[in-house]
Parts: sequence; C-alpha cells; structure tokens
Amino acid sequence: MREPILLPLDRPELSADLSGGAMRRTVHPSGLRILTERMPGSRSASIGFWVGVGSRDEQSERGDAPGSLGSTHFLEHLLFKGTPTRDAYSIATSFDRIGAEHNALTAKEYTCYYAKVRDADIEGAVTVLADMVTNSVLDTGEFETERGVILEELAMASDDLADVANERFFEEALGSHPLGRPIGGSPDTIREAVRDDVDRHYRDRYDPTTLVITAAGAIDHDRLVEQVVAALDLSPEERWHTDRPGVAVRRPMGSVDDPLLGPGGPAATGAEARVSITNRPSEQLNLLIGTEGFRGNDPRRFAFGIMNSVLGGGMSSRLFQEIREKRGLAYTAYSFGASYSDAGLFGMYAGSAPEKAAEVVDLSRLELQRIADGGITEEEHEMALGQIAGSSALALEDSDTRMGRLARAELGSGELYDLDASLERFAAVTAEEIRAVAAELAARPTTVVAVGDATRSGLVATEPAE
Amino acid sequence: MREPILLPLDRPELSADLSGGAMRRTVHPSGLRILTERMPGSRSASIGFWVGVGSRDEQSERGDAPGSLGSTHFLEHLLFKGTPTRDAYSIATSFDRIGAEHNALTAKEYTCYYAKVRDADIEGAVTVLADMVTNSVLDTGEFETERGVILEELAMASDDLADVANERFFEEALGSHPLGRPIGGSPDTIREAVRDDVDRHYRDRYDPTTLVITAAGAIDHDRLVEQVVAALDLSPEERWHTDRPGVAVRRPMGSVDDPLLGPGGPAATGAEARVSITNRPSEQLNLLIGTEGFRGNDPRRFAFGIMNSVLGGGMSSRLFQEIREKRGLAYTAYSFGASYSDAGLFGMYAGSAPEKAAEVVDLSRLELQRIADGGITEEEHEMALGQIAGSSALALEDSDTRMGRLARAELGSGELYDLDASLERFAAVTAEEIRAVAAELAARPTTVVAVGDATRSGLVATEPAE
Repeated sequence: MREPILLPLDRPELSADLSGGAMRRTVHPSGLRILTERMPGSRSASIGFWVGVGSRDEQSERGDAPGSLGSTHFLEHLLFKGTPTRDAYSIATSFDRIGAEHNALTAKEYTCYYAKVRDADIEGAVTVLADMVTNSVLDTGEFETERGVILEELAMASDDLADVANERFFEEALGSHPLGRPIGGSPDTIREAVRDDVDRHYRDRYDPTTLVITAAGAIDHDRLVEQVVAALDLSPEERWHTDRPGVAVRRPMGSVDDPLLGPGGPAATGAEARVSITNRPSEQLNLLIGTEGFRGNDPRRFAFGIMNSVLGGGMSSRLFQEIREKRGLAYTAYSFGASYSDAGLFGMYAGSAPEKAAEVVDLSRLELQRIADGGITEEEHEMALGQIAGSSALALEDSDTRMGRLARAELGSGELYDLDASLERFAAVTAEEIRAVAAELAARPTTVVAVGDATRSGLVATEPAE
Repeated sequence: MREPILLPLDRPELSADLSGGAMRRTVHPSGLRILTERMPGSRSASIGFWVGVGSRDEQSERGDAPGSLGSTHFLEHLLFKGTPTRDAYSIATSFDRIGAEHNALTAKEYTCYYAKVRDADIEGAVTVLADMVTNSVLDTGEFETERGVILEELAMASDDLADVANERFFEEALGSHPLGRPIGGSPDTIREAVRDDVDRHYRDRYDPTTLVITAAGAIDHDRLVEQVVAALDLSPEERWHTDRPGVAVRRPMGSVDDPLLGPGGPAATGAEARVSITNRPSEQLNLLIGTEGFRGNDPRRFAFGIMNSVLGGGMSSRLFQEIREKRGLAYTAYSFGASYSDAGLFGMYAGSAPEKAAEVVDLSRLELQRIADGGITEEEHEMALGQIAGSSALALEDSDTRMGRLARAELGSGELYDLDASLERFAAVTAEEIRAVAAELAARPTTVVAVGDATRSGLVATEPAE
C-alpha cells in the first residue's frame, strides 16, 4: 500500500519533490510554507493564501470579550479594504480587470484568500494577495461600514433555513466545543466588535508560521517561491513577523483514543434522540439528524467514506431511494461527514413537508441502523468504490481542488494522500469495517435539529442539556 | 472581424468542421443534431442531451388545461424514473457507480439532461442518457410519487426568498408573456397534473428534430456520432420519431425591430416604477429592480455585456462599490441580463435591511441613470474588456461550459461565436453604444420587486397592472 506523503515541519528551506515531482514544497526559514502542484496542459492556476486560524480559535477558555466571536470572519472582510498602497477599489480592480475568480472564506480551523487566474496573471495575483494578507490597515471608517455588510450577511444566512439548521446542528451536536460555534459570530457579537480586538487577532495570529501558500495549475514552483518571497517582506523586523522565526506551526490533531466530547457534549444516550426545534414560518421543515463523527486523522475515515456513499452519497443511495424515490417525501436527502483536527460530525439532511418530518427522521435513523446491523451488499460496496474513484478523478481536474488538497494536508495532519494512495486506502477497507462505523455512529447520542414550521410535525423538543 | 460560425439546418448528413476542426457538427437525416468540441489533454467529457422545449412552450394561446403548466419540468423528473429495460434505481446506479456528475435542468426555452464522466465512461453515459430521453415509460405509480417530490421542490423554492423574488421579477417584468411564467408551475398546477398530459407533451415535443446532443472534452466526434446513432433507434417506425424526418427545427428568433412586450407587459412608463411587494417574515428584503432587456440575437448584447460588467459585474462595479463598499447596505449587489429568443430581461439585485431598501432601490436606479447620462470612463471600459476576456477564458476551461455553448448556439440563433470572435465583438463596441444601452434600459418601464418583511421598508406597492 502506498504511504501518504509526509510534510515535515522541522526542515526549513527544504524544497522537496512530492509525488514524483508534480508536487513540490518549500519551507522558508521564517516558517512560511509554499506547496504547489503542476498540472500539465493547464493555462491557468488557483492560488490560495491559507492561514491556520479559524472561528474555533477566537475565544480562549480564559474568556475573551464576546465581541471577539466572529472576529476571524470580520478580519477576512477587512483584508479586502485596503493597505498603505492599495485601497479597497484598487484591490477589487486588480482582480476584476483580469477576470479572476477571487474570494475568501473563513472556516472553523482556517481562513483562505484565493484567486483563480490565467497563467499570465499569476504574479499579479500573488502580489495583491500578499499585500492584502500582510499589510492590511484595518481602517476605522472601513471597520464601521463593514460591520453593516457583515450584519447583512448574517441576516441573509438567517433567512436561509437550511443554513440555520446547519448552524444549529453544529451547536447541538458538538455542545460547548469551540467547533460548535457559528463561524460568523452573531448579530450581537458583531455589533459589539471593536476594531482593536480584530487588529489584535490579526497581529497575534497572522504570521509566517501560520501562513501556507498553495497553488495548482500552470505553476512553476521555483518561480512562485521567488514571487512570494519578493511580495512578502519576511525580514524579522516586519510588523507581521513574530518572534518565533523558523518554527512552522500545525494544529495538534486529537488522538482517536481521546474520549469523545465529554462535558458539554450531547447528554442523551442510546436510542433516545435529543430534539432541537427552531420554529419559523416555512413550507418545508429542514431536518438534520446526526451525531459526533470522525476526526480528520481517524483511520476509520476511509470506511466512513464508503458507508456514507452507500447511505446518502448519490441518487442510488439508500436515503435518496427510501425517502425520495420510493416515498416522495423530500426533494433532497443525503448524508455527510465533517472532519476537524480533534472532532468530527456526521449528519443526514432532508427537507420535507412538516407533517412528514417524523417519518423522515425515523427512516433516516432506520437506514443507518440497517447498515449497522447488516452491513452493505457487495454490489453497493463495489459501486461506492467506483463512485469515489470517478468523482475524485473528476474533482481533481479543477486546479482549485488540488490547491485546497495541498493546504488541508499541510494545515491538518501533515499527511498528503494523492489519488492513488487514497484509492488504495478505500480499496483496503473490509465489509466489517464499514458495518462497524455505522454501528459506532448509530450507538452514539443522536441529535435531531428541525428548523421551520414544526407545529404540525409531531416532533417534540427535548429539554435542553445541562 | 471574425464572423460567427453558422449552423445551417438545411443540409442533412452534413458533417462539418467548425473553428478549425476543434468543433464538429453532424446533422443526421432524421433531423438529430450532434455537435462536439475536442479539448486537447482532457481526460473527461461533458455530454448533454438538449431538447428545444421549455416551460414557455407549455400553454398555447388557445388555452391548454392549467395542469399542463409545469409539465416540462415534471417530464424532466419522470425521465429518471425508468424505461422498459432500466428502472429508476438502475439509471441512478449507472451514473453513481462511475462517480459521474449527472443531472437535468428545465429552463424556459430548453430542457437538458447531462453527465460529466471520465473518458472511459463516455459510451456508457451516452447509452443511458439516450435510453432515458427516448424510452421513458412514465409509469403511473412513479408519476404519483414524483408529484410529491416536485411539490417538495416547489416548497423548498418558496422558502428561499431570493428565489421567490426572481420568479416574481419575471412575472412582473414580462407581464403575460409565456417567458414570465415560473418554470416549475405552481403547487396548484402540479396537484392538478395528469399523467396523460405529460405523456402527450413528451410524445409531441421530444423527437429527433428537437433533440440536440452536444459534448466537449475528451471527445472523438465520429465515435460519438456512432455511439449516439447506435443508442437511439432512429428508424421512422420508432414511436418517438415524428412524421417530419430530416427537418430540424429551431425556435424563431424575434427581430430586434419587433415591438416590445406590448399588451400584457408592464404598464408604467417613464420615471415611475411599478412596485410589487410580497410580504414574508424575514431579516432581509430581497430586491430586484429592472426592465425588459435584450433578446439573444440583439446586436446590442455586446454593448450590454460591457455596460453590465461596469454597473454590477464584480467587486469593483458601481453597484457593489456604492451599495456595499461605501455604505454597507447589502452583502450582495449585482446586475444581470437574461436573454431568450424573442425577449430579454435586465435586473439589479440586492438583499438589504428592510429600512434601507428604499435607499438601495434609489441608488441602483441612480447608478443606471448615471451611465445613461455620462457613460463609463475609459478605465472602466478597458477593465470591463479585461474582465470579460479573463473570465471567459477561465470558464471555457470547463468542458460543461463548452458543451453548453454549443447547445445554446444550435438551439438559439444558429450562430456560434468562439472566444476570439466574441472578444472581437466586445472590442468593437464604442463608448457611445455602451451609454446608449444604459439609456435605453433606464428609459424603459421599471419594475421593482421586494420579497420579505417590507413593513418597515417605506416601499409602497403600486396598483396591479390591468
């Protein structure tokens, strides 16, 4: 079996060929990491500036001000608002004038600023991204304007009941774990946010050791490294430089033997599910049913991938067939996993008529239990492997998929699985391992989240957990 | 200036090289048209079966049963439900087991069934798509189940206020024109739909003369034509064959000199806007402001493309800058055009706090008027050309974009613009032509649609048009 590519942190200035030379990695003495993947024939490239800081990092257990919740996302917005040499309009035109796809996203464990550009535009994109990420001025006036924009973004999300259900599901299933918090904060924390807190967050967290630059497509690694080093001032005197040069950091991965969530996690056990209802006027009730899943480095993640494909991964999956195709109870029905360094989540989603919601919840739990009891068929097993192989190959045709894969491996466990190594892992999974992950998930405390008009649903909210 | 590639309908069995051989087109004697584009280096392909029938074709002026509204979309769902040799599960597994991206979409002037697959899976995908599109049994039991699924799809759309605003905008701006109707019908028409109406729609409208097959990526044209002809029974006796062999049809394009909408179109004129309000509980008010736009073959569409880019095409656009960046009134603000064979639509969208909605409406109209009065700057003009060139080049890296471009040209005006011919048209547009399209749009009757909690908005609905 092919081993994953290991990404060591302790060898600065290392420039290593990975995967036969198509991928390369350089660790600068400052701790900055640059990873690239060349895609033959490509005439464009995706470039990402990734910072290993996300919403989960916002509030320490010592208790920061509530206004710090949402500050990672607030900061992400502000980095578009100007540097000493580029105002917001100039940043916007830099990308618009070349027809780039460019944006940023804040996640629970990282923040990413990215652009997809034609090959001739790579250097320009690197220059502007570097300036944005390291030299933002966080102007006080822009801060106030952006507060309004973010409040509108939260209002938009609040009007999207599937979005609301997703946020509630994380909160309910992960309890008081920092991963359970909404990424963007709340209207209250955004109204309370002060510019100096966000600035402190920027100065404390953005430095060469947390920054990872990845690129894929029409990329020449050595040239990109030169461009990046020229664009970033990496001298020790620079304000965004820290006092820990040369020590790249990586978020510690939880051990799979660590206890599960523990205090603050869901309180219910066994067959009884905790039910959380958010009543809103709606036609459909948005349902999420699930429990804690597998963290990013859990060896069972390959078995989970196959189980998830069979349970709710496509039109032929059990959930889609039972809920939509046989009974017409929903337009959408699927299952999913979300993995982080020290926790994970497993969920099943459907949007159904309120009066059918209880039936959909029962069917979803039953389908998981059926795999837990009887496993999957050989035909399903084979089909899932084909689905994973085909969809992975198609996804990897996009440079942004490859750019993201590099970053998630570097910011995550430090193990990079290329397509072949990954497919070998999936192929090695046994039928019993697949059944066992379903059994594990079915036995964990179940959370049901319903958002919408639940009055006719027959669902009854349980008491809030202690 | 390079001319567009003309796609003649009157030369059956013609197999023509287009654009130097990368694109090819074959018209079968039955009227079936097949167009492909080979993308060097690609290891996958996008394949679409397009039928030149959309929701606008559902109800003739003679007045069909109301149950026929939504029948195109209902039919699209049913084609996944089984043929004499494949049941719904078998169709689903055909695509899932190879990890294909596959789906279908119903639009106002066409319906498309598509798959994106690895190169080795092309023939299999063609076989299943052909079977689905030409041999569906429209089983009575499946019809009833699917009615439930479609009602859930409409319920989901009804809970999405931006979706609702979009539907309302088409209805209000296009009046009683068939393009103004919602694509999926309404819950009432879906509840009334009868299987035999949908079957009649299928038998009347799906035949070799309305079917266009396009593919892009790792495609060998001759082999694809062989595969398609083998998969489709094109003998005159076949039930899905019509009595008009060899006569491919194309929807007639409106002349740009045709009168505008006329009776049934928006009644307001001049500076006064018609305001339509749909009150729903919400945090944001979803706003659409616009008017009739340009049809698909209007020569002004290139000038419109540049005007639209400057007005609301990106983060540097005037709407984004004025509404979001300077004032923080919305998270999203953009403008768009939608073109059909004999009508078009122009709109500006923003989602804002209800109490800011009137300001956002005024700002949007003002920005359009500013271009109508003063045109755009040279810098904006140059930037828009760069944006169009860059984003077009990036989009054309995806085989599905190229697959769709072939189909829209074939089903539309019959003129295919490749990237160079299209960019030459944009480059030839004068500043005065850009100003003139803005002036034209600003002078047309304006429709404002607001969906959400409008009680605090200050917006007042006008009387419904006669």
